[in-house]
Amino acid sequence: MDTLFAHIQKYLKISPEKLTCIGNYFEERTYKKKEFLLRENSHCKEKFFICQGLVQICFTKENGNLQTLDFALKNWWTTDFNAFPSQSNSQYSIQAVEQTKVLVLSFENQELLLKELPEIERYFHHIFQQAYSATQNRIKLLYSLSREELYEHFQRNYPQFTQRVPQYLLASFLGLSSEYLSKIRKKRIS
Amino acid sequence: MDTLFAHIQKYLKISPEKLTCIGNYFEERTYKKKEFLLRENSHCKEKFFICQGLVQICFTKENGNLQTLDFALKNWWTTDFNAFPSQSNSQYSIQAVEQTKVLVLSFENQELLLKELPEIERYFHHIFQQAYSATQNRIKLLYSLSREELYEHFQRNYPQFTQRVPQYLLASFLGLSSEYLSKIRKKRIS
Repeated sequence: MDTLFAHIQKYLKISPEKLTCIGNYFEERTYKKKEFLLRENSHCKEKFFICQGLVQICFTKENGNLQTLDFALKNWWTTDFNAFPSQSNSQYSIQAVEQTKVLVLSFENQELLLKELPEIERYFHHIFQQAYSATQNRIKLLYSLSREELYEHFQRNYPQFTQRVPQYLLASFLGLSSEYLSKIRKKRIS
Repeated sequence: MDTLFAHIQKYLKISPEKLTCIGNYFEERTYKKKEFLLRENSHCKEKFFICQGLVQICFTKENGNLQTLDFALKNWWTTDFNAFPSQSNSQYSIQAVEQTKVLVLSFENQELLLKELPEIERYFHHIFQQAYSATQNRIKLLYSLSREELYEHFQRNYPQFTQRVPQYLLASFLGLSSEYLSKIRKKRIS
């Protein structure tokens, strides 16, 4: 819980007693590598705070291939945020890329938590503002850079991240074939 | 103000007295077609709620061309949401596509409003959750559809919108040349 508490305190002044109370609404869970936190077309009734590890948000394309839409690392919230508020079916799958520890907040528990501690709304306001702005910035990158420049951008700005993610997932995320990404990487090394 | 009040009430139960009080923090402004609400590299200290009209969020590419990143219509909030919380310089411009009426909330007034009526945090929590999810869905479309299919998608799902936006802006938004979009449109009609 300490990871979440520290994250909340970045955005909110909140007493230790209230923080402890927040803990009651969460469930700790560990997923093994390749395990699914959420499956495409299944009922979306939970959101996940990543304490440790890495997950991919992905979906099945018409040709049957899995497309990586995004990743979520430590201190990120993830689920299908369109489906979660209405508790409808998810259009995404969420899969652990490595062993991942999460805190799970069900829709019902979120409602109870926000009723007891409405100041947490401010935390979510800031979290989603940041997530929205980061996603808009990603569209900016998709429109500004070639796929090779996009790889260079991620490599330069998030070197530990690009080392950590398997090459075929990074390629999918960047909209490249694995072969093309491998070629770019070799070119950089030589 | 009624447009904003109705929008807030979609997400929040709030008394008419409190709604009236919210009004004190906003400034009404009208922008003519092509006028800028916010300019790239300028100090970002306001956010805008669109009451009527249409704006584009855009940025200058390395080759000097203007790229449309997104549009905002009635009931959408817009600004550079990365720059706004820190009141730093905007990486986007926001320009009226047609005459546009907005309600302006300055950063200082937002802080005062949220201090007086913290329940508005819940409204922003939901607004940004929705905006984040819509933007993630747009990346899904960019990864799933060809540019021609993307145009078909917008045409099918938002026919009034695609009629309203000048062709060169719609082409920029879809990552197409105006000539190519014009070709697709002619093909559809014939």
